[in-house]
Amino acid sequence: MAKKIGVLLSGCGVFDGAEIHEAVLTLLFLDRAGASIRCMAPDTDQLHVINHLTQQTSDERRNVLVESARIARGEIVDLSTVAADDIDALIIPGGFGAAKNLSDFAVNGPGAQVHPQVQRLLGEMVDRSKPIGAICIAPATVVCALSGRSPRVTIGNDVGTAAAIASMGGEHADCGVADICVDESNRIVTTPAYMLGPGIKDVATGIEKLVDKVLSLC
Amino acid sequence: MAKKIGVLLSGCGVFDGAEIHEAVLTLLFLDRAGASIRCMAPDTDQLHVINHLTQQTSDERRNVLVESARIARGEIVDLSTVAADDIDALIIPGGFGAAKNLSDFAVNGPGAQVHPQVQRLLGEMVDRSKPIGAICIAPATVVCALSGRSPRVTIGNDVGTAAAIASMGGEHADCGVADICVDESNRIVTTPAYMLGPGIKDVATGIEKLVDKVLSLC
Repeated sequence: MAKKIGVLLSGCGVFDGAEIHEAVLTLLFLDRAGASIRCMAPDTDQLHVINHLTQQTSDERRNVLVESARIARGEIVDLSTVAADDIDALIIPGGFGAAKNLSDFAVNGPGAQVHPQVQRLLGEMVDRSKPIGAICIAPATVVCALSGRSPRVTIGNDVGTAAAIASMGGEHADCGVADICVDESNRIVTTPAYMLGPGIKDVATGIEKLVDKVLSLC
Repeated sequence: MAKKIGVLLSGCGVFDGAEIHEAVLTLLFLDRAGASIRCMAPDTDQLHVINHLTQQTSDERRNVLVESARIARGEIVDLSTVAADDIDALIIPGGFGAAKNLSDFAVNGPGAQVHPQVQRLLGEMVDRSKPIGAICIAPATVVCALSGRSPRVTIGNDVGTAAAIASMGGEHADCGVADICVDESNRIVTTPAYMLGPGIKDVATGIEKLVDKVLSLC
Protein backbone atom coordinates (compact mmCIF):
# COMPACT_ATOMS: atom_id res chain seq x y z
CA MET A 1 0.00 0.00 0.00
CA ALA A 2 1.22 3.51 -0.78
CA LYS A 3 2.92 5.32 2.06
CA LYS A 4 0.85 8.25 3.34
CA ILE A 5 3.00 11.35 3.52
CA GLY A 6 1.81 14.59 5.08
CA VAL A 7 3.03 17.84 3.55
CA LEU A 8 2.67 20.75 5.97
CA LEU A 9 2.30 24.05 4.10
CA SER A 10 2.52 27.55 5.55
CA GLY A 11 0.93 29.75 2.89
CA CYS A 12 1.88 30.42 -0.73
CA GLY A 13 4.96 32.49 -1.49
CA VAL A 14 8.55 32.62 -0.26
CA PHE A 15 8.33 35.91 1.68
CA ASP A 16 5.17 35.26 3.72
CA GLY A 17 4.26 31.61 3.13
CA ALA A 18 5.54 28.27 1.88
CA GLU A 19 8.30 28.52 -0.73
CA ILE A 20 6.42 27.50 -3.84
CA HIS A 21 9.25 25.73 -5.67
CA GLU A 22 10.21 23.72 -2.60
CA ALA A 23 6.60 22.71 -2.00
CA VAL A 24 5.94 21.70 -5.61
CA LEU A 25 9.21 19.76 -5.86
CA THR A 26 8.27 17.89 -2.68
CA LEU A 27 4.93 16.93 -4.28
CA LEU A 28 6.66 15.93 -7.54
CA PHE A 29 9.17 13.60 -5.95
CA LEU A 30 6.56 12.09 -3.60
CA ASP A 31 4.23 11.40 -6.54
CA ARG A 32 7.06 9.90 -8.61
CA ALA A 33 7.91 7.62 -5.67
CA GLY A 34 4.30 6.40 -5.50
CA ALA A 35 3.45 8.03 -2.19
CA SER A 36 -0.05 9.08 -1.22
CA ILE A 37 0.12 12.81 -0.47
CA ARG A 38 -1.91 14.56 2.23
CA CYS A 39 -1.46 18.33 2.24
CA MET A 40 -2.33 20.25 5.39
CA ALA A 41 -1.94 23.73 6.86
CA PRO A 42 -3.05 25.56 10.01
CA ASP A 43 -6.34 27.47 9.75
CA THR A 44 -4.95 30.79 10.98
CA ASP A 45 -4.09 34.24 9.67
CA GLN A 46 -0.66 34.74 8.13
CA LEU A 47 1.72 36.87 10.22
CA HIS A 48 1.43 39.38 7.37
CA VAL A 49 1.16 39.64 3.59
CA ILE A 50 4.21 40.65 1.55
CA ASN A 51 3.88 42.06 -1.97
CA HIS A 52 6.33 39.73 -3.75
CA LEU A 53 7.00 42.27 -6.51
CA THR A 54 8.08 45.12 -4.20
CA GLN A 55 8.84 43.11 -1.03
CA GLN A 56 6.79 45.69 0.89
CA THR A 57 4.32 44.68 3.60
CA SER A 58 0.73 44.96 2.39
CA ASP A 59 -2.30 45.82 4.55
CA GLU A 60 -4.14 42.71 3.36
CA ARG A 61 -5.01 39.76 5.57
CA ARG A 62 -4.75 36.22 4.25
CA ASN A 63 -5.36 32.83 5.84
CA VAL A 64 -2.58 30.21 5.84
CA LEU A 65 -4.89 27.29 4.98
CA VAL A 66 -6.69 29.19 2.22
CA GLU A 67 -3.46 30.35 0.56
CA SER A 68 -1.80 26.95 0.97
CA ALA A 69 -4.76 25.51 -0.95
CA ARG A 70 -3.36 27.25 -4.05
CA ILE A 71 -0.29 25.01 -4.00
CA ALA A 72 -2.39 21.95 -3.20
CA ARG A 73 -4.97 22.68 -5.95
CA GLY A 74 -7.67 22.63 -3.27
CA GLU A 75 -6.69 19.17 -1.98
CA ILE A 76 -5.80 20.17 1.55
CA VAL A 77 -7.09 19.78 5.09
CA ASP A 78 -6.91 21.78 8.30
CA LEU A 79 -3.84 20.68 10.26
CA SER A 80 -5.98 20.33 13.40
CA THR A 81 -7.81 17.38 11.82
CA VAL A 82 -4.62 15.37 11.22
CA ALA A 83 -3.10 12.99 13.75
CA ALA A 84 0.25 11.24 13.46
CA ASP A 85 -1.66 7.95 13.19
CA ASP A 86 -3.07 9.21 9.84
CA ILE A 87 0.32 9.51 8.14
CA ASP A 88 3.59 7.60 7.84
CA ALA A 89 5.83 10.67 7.63
CA LEU A 90 5.62 14.47 7.55
CA ILE A 91 7.53 16.88 5.31
CA ILE A 92 7.63 20.66 5.85
CA PRO A 93 8.75 22.79 2.89
CA GLY A 94 10.48 26.08 3.68
CA GLY A 95 9.80 29.70 2.83
CA PHE A 96 9.43 32.42 5.45
CA GLY A 97 5.97 31.05 6.23
CA ALA A 98 7.63 28.11 7.98
CA ALA A 99 9.21 30.62 10.39
CA LYS A 100 6.41 33.22 10.42
CA ASN A 101 3.22 31.14 10.42
CA LEU A 102 4.25 27.69 11.75
CA SER A 103 6.31 29.40 14.44
CA ASP A 104 7.46 32.98 15.00
CA PHE A 105 11.16 32.15 14.68
CA ALA A 106 11.61 34.81 11.98
CA VAL A 107 10.50 37.44 14.48
CA ASN A 108 11.63 36.09 17.84
CA GLY A 109 14.62 33.89 16.99
CA PRO A 110 15.55 31.43 19.73
CA GLY A 111 12.68 32.72 21.90
CA ALA A 112 10.15 31.61 19.28
CA GLN A 113 6.80 29.98 19.98
CA VAL A 114 5.55 27.17 17.74
CA HIS A 115 1.93 27.16 16.50
CA PRO A 116 0.08 24.82 18.91
CA GLN A 117 -1.11 22.45 16.17
CA VAL A 118 2.37 22.25 14.65
CA GLN A 119 3.81 21.57 18.10
CA ARG A 120 1.22 18.84 18.68
CA LEU A 121 1.74 17.00 15.39
CA LEU A 122 5.54 17.18 15.52
CA GLY A 123 5.44 15.81 19.06
CA GLU A 124 3.15 12.97 18.03
CA MET A 125 5.36 12.12 15.06
CA VAL A 126 8.56 11.88 17.04
CA ASP A 127 6.82 10.01 19.90
CA ARG A 128 5.86 7.35 17.33
CA SER A 129 9.31 7.35 15.66
CA LYS A 130 7.74 8.51 12.41
CA PRO A 131 10.13 10.42 10.15
CA ILE A 132 10.03 14.19 9.66
CA GLY A 133 11.54 16.02 6.70
CA ALA A 134 12.18 19.77 6.91
CA ILE A 135 13.42 22.00 4.12
CA CYS A 136 15.17 25.40 4.04
CA ILE A 137 14.30 27.38 7.22
CA ALA A 138 11.67 24.86 8.41
CA PRO A 139 14.27 22.97 10.49
CA ALA A 140 14.43 25.98 12.85
CA THR A 141 10.75 25.49 13.67
CA VAL A 142 11.28 21.74 14.09
CA VAL A 143 14.14 22.35 16.54
CA CYS A 144 12.05 24.86 18.46
CA ALA A 145 9.24 22.31 18.78
CA LEU A 146 11.49 19.38 19.65
CA SER A 147 14.26 21.12 21.58
CA GLY A 148 14.21 18.54 24.38
CA ARG A 149 15.35 15.86 21.93
CA SER A 150 18.47 17.68 20.71
CA PRO A 151 17.62 17.34 17.02
CA ARG A 152 20.49 17.51 14.52
CA VAL A 153 19.57 19.54 11.45
CA THR A 154 20.94 21.74 8.69
CA ILE A 155 19.81 25.07 7.31
CA GLY A 156 22.90 25.29 5.10
CA ASN A 157 25.74 27.38 6.52
CA ASP A 158 24.25 30.61 7.88
CA VAL A 159 26.19 31.30 11.07
CA GLY A 160 23.50 33.33 12.84
CA THR A 161 20.72 30.84 12.19
CA ALA A 162 22.99 27.94 13.15
CA ALA A 163 23.76 29.69 16.44
CA ALA A 164 20.05 30.24 17.08
CA ILE A 165 19.43 26.53 16.46
CA ALA A 166 22.16 25.63 18.95
CA SER A 167 20.71 27.98 21.55
CA MET A 168 17.31 26.26 21.18
CA GLY A 169 18.92 22.90 22.02
CA GLY A 170 19.55 21.69 18.49
CA GLU A 171 22.76 20.75 16.78
CA HIS A 172 23.55 22.35 13.42
CA ALA A 173 25.52 20.62 10.67
CA ASP A 174 26.74 22.58 7.64
CA CYS A 175 25.44 21.03 4.41
CA GLY A 176 25.45 21.78 0.68
CA VAL A 177 22.28 22.44 -1.31
CA ALA A 178 22.55 19.10 -3.11
CA ASP A 179 22.79 17.10 0.10
CA ILE A 180 20.82 16.19 3.20
CA CYS A 181 21.44 15.98 6.93
CA VAL A 182 20.04 12.90 8.66
CA ASP A 183 19.38 12.67 12.40
CA GLU A 184 19.05 8.90 12.64
CA SER A 185 17.95 8.78 16.26
CA ASN A 186 15.15 11.33 15.88
CA ARG A 187 14.45 10.31 12.27
CA ILE A 188 14.66 13.91 11.05
CA VAL A 189 15.91 14.67 7.52
CA THR A 190 16.79 18.24 6.46
CA THR A 191 18.16 20.02 3.36
CA PRO A 192 19.11 23.69 2.86
CA ALA A 193 17.25 24.34 -0.45
CA TYR A 194 16.81 28.09 -0.97
CA MET A 195 18.74 28.92 2.23
CA LEU A 196 21.59 28.36 -0.24
CA GLY A 197 20.09 28.15 -3.73
CA PRO A 198 21.15 29.34 -6.22
CA GLY A 199 18.53 27.91 -8.58
CA ILE A 200 15.60 25.54 -8.76
CA LYS A 201 17.61 22.69 -10.28
CA ASP A 202 20.06 22.81 -7.34
CA VAL A 203 17.25 22.91 -4.80
CA ALA A 204 15.55 20.00 -6.57
CA THR A 205 18.59 17.75 -6.09
CA GLY A 206 18.53 18.10 -2.31
CA ILE A 207 14.76 17.84 -2.03
CA GLU A 208 14.70 14.64 -4.10
CA LYS A 209 17.28 13.13 -1.73
CA LEU A 210 15.24 14.27 1.27
CA VAL A 211 12.04 12.73 -0.08
CA ASP A 212 13.79 9.45 -0.87
CA LYS A 213 15.38 9.31 2.59
CA VAL A 214 12.12 10.12 4.40
CA LEU A 215 10.34 7.38 2.45
CA SER A 216 13.11 4.90 3.23
CA LEU A 217 12.64 5.59 6.95
CA CYS A 218 8.88 4.87 6.89
CA MET B 1 25.34 31.60 -24.55
CA ALA B 2 22.27 30.45 -22.66
CA LYS B 3 18.98 30.66 -24.50
CA LYS B 4 16.71 33.34 -23.04
CA ILE B 5 13.26 31.90 -22.43
CA GLY B 6 10.31 34.02 -21.39
CA VAL B 7 7.76 32.46 -19.02
CA LEU B 8 4.44 34.30 -19.15
CA LEU B 9 2.56 33.93 -15.86
CA SER B 10 -1.08 34.80 -15.19
CA GLY B 11 -1.31 34.94 -11.40
CA CYS B 12 -0.71 32.30 -8.75
CA GLY B 13 -3.21 29.47 -8.35
CA VAL B 14 -5.06 27.11 -10.65
CA PHE B 15 -8.55 28.60 -10.27
CA ASP B 16 -7.75 32.29 -10.85
CA GLY B 17 -4.13 32.43 -11.97
CA ALA B 18 -1.23 30.40 -13.31
CA GLU B 19 -1.33 26.72 -12.37
CA ILE B 20 1.46 26.56 -9.81
CA HIS B 21 2.73 23.03 -10.55
CA GLU B 22 2.85 23.68 -14.29
CA ALA B 23 4.69 26.96 -13.79
CA VAL B 24 7.25 25.51 -11.37
CA LEU B 25 7.86 22.44 -13.55
CA THR B 26 8.47 24.76 -16.51
CA LEU B 27 11.08 26.64 -14.46
CA LEU B 28 12.66 23.37 -13.27
CA PHE B 29 13.11 21.89 -16.73
CA LEU B 30 14.33 25.19 -18.19
CA ASP B 31 16.91 25.55 -15.42
CA ARG B 32 18.05 21.94 -15.83
CA ALA B 33 18.49 22.57 -19.56
CA GLY B 34 20.70 25.59 -18.86
CA ALA B 35 18.24 28.20 -20.12
CA SER B 36 18.18 31.77 -18.84
CA ILE B 37 14.66 32.35 -17.51
CA ARG B 38 12.78 35.64 -17.75
CA CYS B 39 9.43 35.60 -15.96
CA MET B 40 6.83 38.18 -16.94
CA ALA B 41 3.14 38.94 -16.36
CA PRO B 42 0.68 41.69 -17.28
CA ASP B 43 0.31 44.50 -14.73
CA THR B 44 -3.47 44.27 -14.47
CA ASP B 45 -6.14 43.17 -12.02
CA GLN B 46 -7.13 39.51 -12.02
CA LEU B 47 -10.61 38.79 -13.41
CA HIS B 48 -11.45 37.74 -9.86
CA VAL B 49 -10.04 36.00 -6.80
CA ILE B 50 -11.09 32.44 -5.99
CA ASN B 51 -10.72 30.99 -2.50
CA HIS B 52 -8.88 27.76 -3.41
CA LEU B 53 -10.13 25.97 -0.28
CA THR B 54 -13.85 26.53 -0.94
CA GLN B 55 -13.71 27.39 -4.66
CA GLN B 56 -15.97 30.35 -3.91
CA THR B 57 -15.36 33.79 -5.44
CA SER B 58 -13.88 36.20 -2.92
CA ASP B 59 -14.45 39.98 -2.82
CA GLU B 60 -10.70 40.63 -2.84
CA ARG B 61 -8.81 42.27 -5.68
CA ARG B 62 -5.38 41.03 -6.68
CA ASN B 63 -2.95 42.10 -9.39
CA VAL B 64 -1.70 39.52 -11.91
CA LEU B 65 1.92 40.75 -11.87
CA VAL B 66 2.06 40.98 -8.08
CA GLU B 67 0.65 37.48 -7.55
CA SER B 68 2.78 35.98 -10.34
CA ALA B 69 5.82 37.34 -8.46
CA ARG B 70 5.12 34.69 -5.80
CA ILE B 71 5.93 31.91 -8.27
CA ALA B 72 8.93 33.84 -9.62
CA ARG B 73 10.33 34.63 -6.13
CA GLY B 74 10.19 38.32 -7.05
CA GLU B 75 12.27 37.88 -10.23
CA ILE B 76 9.64 39.07 -12.70
CA VAL B 77 8.98 42.00 -15.00
CA ASP B 78 5.92 43.72 -16.42
CA LEU B 79 4.99 42.06 -19.72
CA SER B 80 4.73 45.49 -21.36
CA THR B 81 8.50 45.94 -20.99
CA VAL B 82 9.34 42.75 -22.91
CA ALA B 83 9.79 42.59 -26.68
CA ALA B 84 10.25 39.45 -28.75
CA ASP B 85 13.80 40.63 -29.49
CA ASP B 86 14.60 40.17 -25.77
CA ILE B 87 13.86 36.43 -25.73
CA ASP B 88 14.47 33.35 -27.86
CA ALA B 89 11.18 31.62 -27.01
CA LEU B 90 8.09 32.08 -24.84
CA ILE B 91 6.31 29.50 -22.69
CA ILE B 92 2.86 30.04 -21.15
CA PRO B 93 1.88 27.72 -18.27
CA GLY B 94 -1.82 26.96 -17.83
CA GLY B 95 -4.29 27.42 -15.02
CA PHE B 96 -7.54 29.35 -15.37
CA GLY B 97 -5.52 32.58 -15.26
CA ALA B 98 -4.32 31.83 -18.80
CA ALA B 99 -7.97 31.99 -19.91
CA LYS B 100 -9.21 34.60 -17.41
CA ASN B 101 -6.36 37.12 -17.21
CA LEU B 102 -4.34 36.65 -20.44
CA SER B 103 -7.58 36.47 -22.38
CA ASP B 104 -11.23 36.11 -21.38
CA PHE B 105 -11.68 32.74 -23.10
CA ALA B 106 -12.96 31.16 -19.87
CA VAL B 107 -15.84 33.67 -19.87
CA ASN B 108 -16.48 34.36 -23.56
CA GLY B 109 -15.28 31.19 -25.31
CA PRO B 110 -14.66 31.63 -29.04
CA GLY B 111 -15.63 35.32 -28.78
CA ALA B 112 -12.76 35.98 -26.39
CA GLN B 113 -10.51 39.03 -26.40
CA VAL B 114 -6.81 38.66 -25.70
CA HIS B 115 -5.04 41.06 -23.31
CA PRO B 116 -3.39 43.69 -25.56
CA GLN B 117 0.13 43.03 -24.30
CA VAL B 118 -0.29 39.28 -24.70
CA GLN B 119 -1.62 39.82 -28.22
CA ARG B 120 1.35 42.07 -29.03
CA LEU B 121 4.07 39.73 -27.76
CA LEU B 122 2.55 36.61 -29.32
CA GLY B 123 2.30 38.44 -32.64
CA GLU B 124 5.91 39.57 -32.43
CA MET B 125 7.09 36.06 -31.57
CA VAL B 126 5.37 34.37 -34.48
CA ASP B 127 6.39 37.18 -36.87
CA ARG B 128 10.02 36.40 -35.97
CA SER B 129 9.51 32.62 -36.15
CA LYS B 130 10.42 32.33 -32.48
CA PRO B 131 8.88 29.30 -30.76
CA ILE B 132 5.94 29.45 -28.37
CA GLY B 133 5.08 26.77 -25.82
CA ALA B 134 1.61 26.68 -24.26
CA ILE B 135 0.43 24.36 -21.51
CA CYS B 136 -3.01 23.12 -20.38
CA ILE B 137 -5.68 25.73 -21.33
CA ALA B 138 -3.13 28.35 -22.47
CA PRO B 139 -3.29 27.08 -26.10
CA ALA B 140 -6.85 28.47 -26.32
CA THR B 141 -5.51 31.97 -25.68
CA VAL B 142 -2.70 31.41 -28.20
CA VAL B 143 -5.19 30.33 -30.86
CA CYS B 144 -7.38 33.34 -30.11
CA ALA B 145 -4.38 35.66 -30.53
CA LEU B 146 -3.04 33.95 -33.67
CA SER B 147 -6.25 32.78 -35.30
CA GLY B 148 -5.17 34.07 -38.72
CA ARG B 149 -2.33 31.58 -38.81
CA SER B 150 -4.44 28.45 -38.21
CA PRO B 151 -2.35 27.20 -35.28
CA ARG B 152 -2.47 23.48 -34.53
CA VAL B 153 -2.61 22.80 -30.78
CA THR B 154 -3.82 20.40 -28.13
CA ILE B 155 -5.66 20.90 -24.88
CA GLY B 156 -6.02 17.15 -24.39
CA ASN B 157 -9.33 15.69 -25.50
CA ASP B 158 -12.10 17.96 -24.20
CA VAL B 159 -14.67 18.06 -27.00
CA GLY B 160 -16.18 21.45 -26.16
CA THR B 161 -12.85 23.24 -25.85
CA ALA B 162 -11.58 21.55 -29.02
CA ALA B 163 -14.66 22.81 -30.86
CA ALA B 164 -14.11 26.33 -29.53
CA ILE B 165 -10.51 26.19 -30.76
CA ALA B 166 -11.70 25.13 -34.20
CA SER B 167 -14.27 27.93 -34.31
CA MET B 168 -11.49 30.45 -33.56
CA GLY B 169 -9.55 29.24 -36.59
CA GLY B 170 -7.28 26.75 -34.89
CA GLU B 171 -6.90 23.04 -35.41
CA HIS B 172 -7.16 20.75 -32.40
CA ALA B 173 -5.25 17.48 -32.07
CA ASP B 174 -6.08 15.02 -29.29
CA CYS B 175 -3.01 14.27 -27.18
CA GLY B 176 -2.12 12.35 -24.00
CA VAL B 177 -0.77 14.03 -20.88
CA ALA B 178 2.70 12.56 -21.41
CA ASP B 179 2.98 13.88 -24.95
CA ILE B 180 3.16 17.10 -26.93
CA CYS B 181 1.59 18.53 -30.08
CA VAL B 182 3.98 20.35 -32.42
CA ASP B 183 2.87 22.87 -35.04
CA GLU B 184 6.08 22.92 -37.07
CA SER B 185 5.08 25.77 -39.39
CA ASN B 186 4.04 28.15 -36.60
CA ARG B 187 6.63 26.74 -34.18
CA ILE B 188 4.00 26.24 -31.46
CA VAL B 189 4.36 23.40 -28.93
CA THR B 190 1.50 22.40 -26.61
CA THR B 191 0.78 19.77 -23.94
CA PRO B 192 -2.45 19.03 -22.02
CA ALA B 193 -0.98 18.91 -18.46
CA TYR B 194 -3.80 19.35 -15.90
CA MET B 195 -6.46 19.48 -18.64
CA LEU B 196 -5.97 15.71 -18.27
CA GLY B 197 -3.85 15.11 -15.16
CA PRO B 198 -4.19 13.01 -13.11
CA GLY B 199 -1.12 13.86 -11.06
CA ILE B 200 1.96 16.02 -10.95
CA LYS B 201 4.29 13.27 -12.15
CA ASP B 202 2.16 12.76 -15.27
CA VAL B 203 1.99 16.48 -15.97
CA ALA B 204 5.76 16.73 -15.49
CA THR B 205 6.41 14.23 -18.28
CA GLY B 206 4.59 16.30 -20.89
CA ILE B 207 6.01 19.60 -19.68
CA GLU B 208 9.57 18.27 -19.80
CA LYS B 209 8.99 17.23 -23.42
CA LEU B 210 7.50 20.62 -24.23
CA VAL B 211 10.45 22.48 -22.72
CA ASP B 212 12.95 20.29 -24.58
CA LYS B 213 11.11 20.77 -27.87
CA VAL B 214 10.80 24.54 -27.47
CA LEU B 215 14.53 24.77 -26.72
CA SER B 216 15.35 22.61 -29.76
CA LEU B 217 13.41 25.05 -31.97
CA CYS B 218 15.35 28.13 -30.76
